Amino acid sequence: MKVSELGEFGLIARLAEACAKAGQPSSLVIGIGDDAAAWRASGVQLVTTDTLIEGTHFSLTHVPWRDLGWNALTVNVSDIAAMGGIPEQALLTLALAPDTEVADVDELLAGMLEASSEYSTAIVGGDIVGCDTTMVTVTLIGRALADERGESLLMTRSGAQAGDAIAVTGHLGDSAGGLRILLGESTGSAGAAAYLKRAHLHHRPPLAIGQMAAREGVRAAIDVSDGLLQDLGHVCEASGLGAIVHAQKIPISPALREAFPKDALSLACGGGEDYELLLAAPPEVIESVRDKADVPIAVIGEMATDRQHRIRLLAEDGGELPPPGAGWDHLRGAAWRR
Amino acid sequence: MKVSELGEFGLIARLAEACAKAGQPSSLVIGIGDDAAAWRASGVQLVTTDTLIEGTHFSLTHVPWRDLGWNALTVNVSDIAAMGGIPEQALLTLALAPDTEVADVDELLAGMLEASSEYSTAIVGGDIVGCDTTMVTVTLIGRALADERGESLLMTRSGAQAGDAIAVTGHLGDSAGGLRILLGESTGSAGAAAYLKRAHLHHRPPLAIGQMAAREGVRAAIDVSDGLLQDLGHVCEASGLGAIVHAQKIPISPALREAFPKDALSLACGGGEDYELLLAAPPEVIESVRDKADVPIAVIGEMATDRQHRIRLLAEDGGELPPPGAGWDHLRGAAWRR
Repeated sequence: MKVSELGEFGLIARLAEACAKAGQPSSLVIGIGDDAAAWRASGVQLVTTDTLIEGTHFSLTHVPWRDLGWNALTVNVSDIAAMGGIPEQALLTLALAPDTEVADVDELLAGMLEASSEYSTAIVGGDIVGCDTTMVTVTLIGRALADERGESLLMTRSGAQAGDAIAVTGHLGDSAGGLRILLGESTGSAGAAAYLKRAHLHHRPPLAIGQMAAREGVRAAIDVSDGLLQDLGHVCEASGLGAIVHAQKIPISPALREAFPKDALSLACGGGEDYELLLAAPPEVIESVRDKADVPIAVIGEMATDRQHRIRLLAEDGGELPPPGAGWDHLRGAAWRR
Repeated sequence: MKVSELGEFGLIARLAEACAKAGQPSSLVIGIGDDAAAWRASGVQLVTTDTLIEGTHFSLTHVPWRDLGWNALTVNVSDIAAMGGIPEQALLTLALAPDTEVADVDELLAGMLEASSEYSTAIVGGDIVGCDTTMVTVTLIGRALADERGESLLMTRSGAQAGDAIAVTGHLGDSAGGLRILLGESTGSAGAAAYLKRAHLHHRPPLAIGQMAAREGVRAAIDVSDGLLQDLGHVCEASGLGAIVHAQKIPISPALREAFPKDALSLACGGGEDYELLLAAPPEVIESVRDKADVPIAVIGEMATDRQHRIRLLAEDGGELPPPGAGWDHLRGAAWRR
């Protein structure tokens, strides 16, 4: 069945039923089906939104609908994680061509509900519109952690200090490597290819690490979504600092090195869509975070005084490397069209 | 200059500057430019989202960018008004073709900021993506009114009771008439045409009326966005009731009657995009709302016991009329393509 046969209100009813089955938090007052959703709140609230557009952010030829639904939520979870926050209410806006199969929308919703269960969020509303280009927008609302005195514990882009250690979670570049393989580059072993494709199709932002880091006293963070150097650049600009990054300390997975031996560093520095966290804090705070983490966290450099907010990428011998990779600008490039 | 020349981050900086100049509420902790926006909240929060897509919801041939920006916010204000709430934080997501003029985006933002000032909201974040189809998504967060004891005063679609009077604000069908004129139907006087076009291009949802109605004890409301009968149908279904509507009581402007003498009732019943409020409450409560309102409020019918949730449209002689107009389904039709 096509969505045009089911109609807008039939589709909304179908989504509402699936979301109700998935369960709703006790703070929710009104969910899907009224003019607005409503919930009880206190303290500092957070909101972020990200849109995925066919042809720019994904290709339905390569990306299963279920993964699309998972990622539409998790790219937003990543932003809340970068604030050290707790995600709660999600809105789903779907732009769909009239001949979209209802079964595909079911898969998308199933993926989003899986992610919603994994990260303890609930879908509370959204919008459905007809459009030739498939588009998925998720808006995610959450709240900030608070300390014992009720003061909110937020990590921001502007919270870094000169001398702070710069750390990143997980491995970088895997998602960009996976994209290349999905686009047809056949390189490395089947195992490495499967691992990298999974990194691209199924983001797993380290939400608990963000919350733990905020509790441990980290005050500066960003999620790595547009490429390490570009995202670190945002922290530098917002904090009025520069940064030094040691190239050999950037965490690169064995799979990425195997599949893209020449481009691994470039993919790790500018590939984008990693959805890992970059943290900046005094070295002893970062050490305490590393001690408590259940994922690898690599210290890759330090924040430095620099009025021009430059990032210097250093080789093992201390020499400066030219910046590899370009980072991501949504009005200048389109991944699936390259 | 094209947006592709300015780039994503240049455009974000430009939007952030314009929003900062427009002022920010004291409750805002973090605005545009971090991974998420943050604000202090308490009580019941509300959220709604609406997407406008070129070719479906508007045509850039007919709709000035400034009006597009105004309407992108006000269609969401209308949803918060229908809950009796207070809108506060807005997110703006723009999908733009790379060759979009920066001056056009400036106009769109100016229109949205005008609406933001009119309705006391602030733009606190959003997303910018490249797409061949221009698309504007606004997510609007607000809060519910509360009574003296701190209990939230919400109007919902499910709050109607049998015997409630049904009332609507303003005039219905003007926006749909204005759309026809924009699409080339030349009919009626220039003055009527200008009035109707304005109704289509510049929605003015009666936010203060929604809040006053909630304070006066109205517990059921919806905004009229998809057409009177369809939206009343949502109230009937959610409340488990039917409704009787007296055709001659539906408020139709002299301009609409002049420009579309044969179709005025049909446009008022099913034209859509009115962004007026429909209220359902005991007749004495509706009378009290009418007494305090500074806009015309028409009582058009009453909620009735009916397990099939039918709406009966009655002529002056009491005879039942066939339902005129079809209402709006976003996956089945596209206004600008008809």
